[in-house]
Amino acid sequence: MRIGELSRRTGVPVPTIKYYVREGLLPAGQLTSPNQASYGETHEHRLRLIRALLDVGGLKVSAIAEVLAAVDDPGRSVHKILGVATDLLVARYPESGDGTSLAASRAQVSELIARRGWRVGEDCPAREALATALTALERVGHQEFAGVMDSYADAAEIAARADLGYVGGSAGVDAVVERAIVGTVLGDAMLDALRHLAQVSISAGMYEARRAATEGAASGPG
Amino acid sequence: MRIGELSRRTGVPVPTIKYYVREGLLPAGQLTSPNQASYGETHEHRLRLIRALLDVGGLKVSAIAEVLAAVDDPGRSVHKILGVATDLLVARYPESGDGTSLAASRAQVSELIARRGWRVGEDCPAREALATALTALERVGHQEFAGVMDSYADAAEIAARADLGYVGGSAGVDAVVERAIVGTVLGDAMLDALRHLAQVSISAGMYEARRAATEGAASGPG
Repeated sequence: MRIGELSRRTGVPVPTIKYYVREGLLPAGQLTSPNQASYGETHEHRLRLIRALLDVGGLKVSAIAEVLAAVDDPGRSVHKILGVATDLLVARYPESGDGTSLAASRAQVSELIARRGWRVGEDCPAREALATALTALERVGHQEFAGVMDSYADAAEIAARADLGYVGGSAGVDAVVERAIVGTVLGDAMLDALRHLAQVSISAGMYEARRAATEGAASGPG
Repeated sequence: MRIGELSRRTGVPVPTIKYYVREGLLPAGQLTSPNQASYGETHEHRLRLIRALLDVGGLKVSAIAEVLAAVDDPGRSVHKILGVATDLLVARYPESGDGTSLAASRAQVSELIARRGWRVGEDCPAREALATALTALERVGHQEFAGVMDSYADAAEIAARADLGYVGGSAGVDAVVERAIVGTVLGDAMLDALRHLAQVSISAGMYEARRAATEGAASGPG
């Protein structure tokens, strides 16, 4: 198909498609004449993937280029791709100075990993993402919130097992790699949204229980 | 303290502090002379909160202004603040066209909420955040990943119960409100990071099991 048709099908404007090609996110079309290129289903699929990572995953173009380079790397493994995806997670939450409390947070992360018996390398970027969040908690005086960590770790294991089940339930290497990315990036958005729905539901129950208790006590001193 | 001292304590540059005051994120200092203002611990605390929401929560300045306005609103309730925080979550993942599949995703979200027995209003913005993620999955041909949703919902309930336990375990209304924000925004970052750590650990286990199986079969036909 021509670039105009590719644009119509995906809803991505022609100049944007050309920009993705220039930035190396999308392979160039096959030249059918000196100034006309033809695009196939691979391009359409890749374009939809780029948009999902941009719009829902909130990744930057440069970060997407990095992930896609890992996808196109013949020496890739699912384990390695997960590492790249986690790097991007860290890139989303930049560190903000103050080495002392960050060191303490890193130690806290290591303790948690040991306590759970998780097998995670020393250089895994998700360690740093968690340490950064813990440091931010401490800086705003909410280090006590870190008490939810073991419950969160229980929740994280349940979600991660579902993720790996999806990633592993695929035949080809290409499919496995793409599933790992989609599951990692879009999975964050899904899990966050579900946690908020559950919070609203639990909070509604608590609020009504409190109101009922207040009304029941309405005959007491005002 | 003077603005220079406030800057030194928090690591936020003086021009940035002035910008936050102009944008209404930070209350102005108390004027001690026509061109000098004094700042207190309230300012320092608020400034740290702003930085945490910016750096770790990934929120924009305009979104933080909205959250803080809700915090300073005398008619607030924890339930309402959670709503505002969820609005911001949605703002982070902008919708990208295509009404038909979005309507189908919304129906899928409603079914899940009914299945879980969650009490969530029709206009809760987290519904839209989840529907947007599901639509993105479908667009990249990974609608099958939506099969993890019930496991994710289990995980989300565990995390949300821990969140509400933290929020509810506080005496003053001010503290409850701030805990709700911190728990919502920094909690996303923590839970995402923990899920990635769990993924890496489970994936390492699967990878080694596969390698062991391959090595065990090494005497077979090459």
